[in-house]
Amino acid sequence: MNELSIPGPTHDAGEFTRPVVVKIGGTEGVDFASICKDVWRLSKQGMRLVLVHGGSAEANQLGGQLGYPPRFITSPSGFTSRYSDRRTLEIFTMAVNGKVNTSLVKQLQALGVNALGLSGLDGQLLKATRKTAIQSIEDGKRKIIRDDYSGKIEQVNASLLNILLDSGYVPLIAPLALGDDGEALNVDADRAAAMVAAALEAELLVLLTAVPGLMRSFPDESTLIPALKTSQLQQALAYAEGRMKKKVLCAGEALQGGVDRVIIADGRVENPISLALAGNGTLIHG
Amino acid sequence: MNELSIPGPTHDAGEFTRPVVVKIGGTEGVDFASICKDVWRLSKQGMRLVLVHGGSAEANQLGGQLGYPPRFITSPSGFTSRYSDRRTLEIFTMAVNGKVNTSLVKQLQALGVNALGLSGLDGQLLKATRKTAIQSIEDGKRKIIRDDYSGKIEQVNASLLNILLDSGYVPLIAPLALGDDGEALNVDADRAAAMVAAALEAELLVLLTAVPGLMRSFPDESTLIPALKTSQLQQALAYAEGRMKKKVLCAGEALQGGVDRVIIADGRVENPISLALAGNGTLIHG
Repeated sequence: MNELSIPGPTHDAGEFTRPVVVKIGGTEGVDFASICKDVWRLSKQGMRLVLVHGGSAEANQLGGQLGYPPRFITSPSGFTSRYSDRRTLEIFTMAVNGKVNTSLVKQLQALGVNALGLSGLDGQLLKATRKTAIQSIEDGKRKIIRDDYSGKIEQVNASLLNILLDSGYVPLIAPLALGDDGEALNVDADRAAAMVAAALEAELLVLLTAVPGLMRSFPDESTLIPALKTSQLQQALAYAEGRMKKKVLCAGEALQGGVDRVIIADGRVENPISLALAGNGTLIHG
Repeated sequence: MNELSIPGPTHDAGEFTRPVVVKIGGTEGVDFASICKDVWRLSKQGMRLVLVHGGSAEANQLGGQLGYPPRFITSPSGFTSRYSDRRTLEIFTMAVNGKVNTSLVKQLQALGVNALGLSGLDGQLLKATRKTAIQSIEDGKRKIIRDDYSGKIEQVNASLLNILLDSGYVPLIAPLALGDDGEALNVDADRAAAMVAAALEAELLVLLTAVPGLMRSFPDESTLIPALKTSQLQQALAYAEGRMKKKVLCAGEALQGGVDRVIIADGRVENPISLALAGNGTLIHG
């Protein structure tokens, strides 16, 4: 699809006076090159973009290469998250901050986007509280995990992002945060994007992923829900499976934090952000 | 040594109105924890610090773990540099940007220094020209290497550093640069520090390393040269061995670029920057 064939009604990126936050999924299938090209087009039109990325696949791969494969925790309510002991966090940092973030900055810079990569540690961009006791279900039994270095974001340094946006940079954020004791913590990238969007009072949060949006009956794409109101979110949680459940919760958090609209959309296509603006995916609004 | 026992004449960090650039050596023995503590003390006193680090040891270690150990190039004039093919550069990026930079930011933040890590790719901080044909001497024979991704820094985005300094952040730079074709390039960290110091019209460049300074007869520490004038630099090159030769050249570049003073000093001691200001190491000035 070339730039001219984006289906209408397209939005003029210049219409957005407040920032737009885009979460770039770390899932396989999400097309980084297309996203970068779309970021270039939209930022050229004056859109103030802040990007947040994941990198689970790269972290898993590096862990495997280093003989330290990933382990996962399943919470009693069914959410899955990475088990981040010290060594896992070090590997995660190298993969997500050293490889994915740098590689995206490079791709964006090669296109002419003045991207600037940060992790949540930099300039106290993301401050989090460490989860010191995590409940995990293993073989049906409840277990408490205490050596996990993941956290819940409590504070976003919006001032730093605004300084960078005002100076013409496109901030690109890796999902690490600074803990209360000055330690590095792994944080959920969807949540990070939602918190950043709320702190910036973003006009829009786009969560790009490897599915077309929220489906009433996953994986039947004909059951895609095109739009939802905040009041329907609780009900929508029932349809959401796995990672999508987290995304729906994040959408709720962002909207509650003052973001106008959230779109969960397909990140595997060309011009994924523009297409989301044009009506692709699931729109969630007030 | 506690904070009160630093030998005089100490400088008041507040005397420095222009930035001070400190290169933190990647060599084993350099004491990161002491450097971070000294940075905390000096920045609290109002010194505007910019830090540049290396990370060769970490890159070599990671390369070994991943079954891709480092290789080196010896130039006809005797300089040694890392042979950076694509895979080596990727490993270098993970180690230097993902591990060393993040770890230093974390250590500084834990002390209360608002450090912000960047690589030269971020916001086009360091732009470099790729060395497309490097002469190498192997077994006494001259060879041309064309698949190397290292570069010579041509431009520093001083505006970005000034914005961050004005906003109270301490920039911490990993030695990567953006090439003409938007590729990532490995750059020499001493040279990066010298170029950054010149671009900022820094008052002082401190190159911290694992020796006490420039010695007339290495490794006899009693032959340490306490001070040199720019006019004596050419002569001093004759005493310098290995990496020290590069540091002396970098000192010359920084001074020529408008930096007032360069100090090559010991990074293995407590309060290494303060001690350099108090007369430790080799001072090179106009």
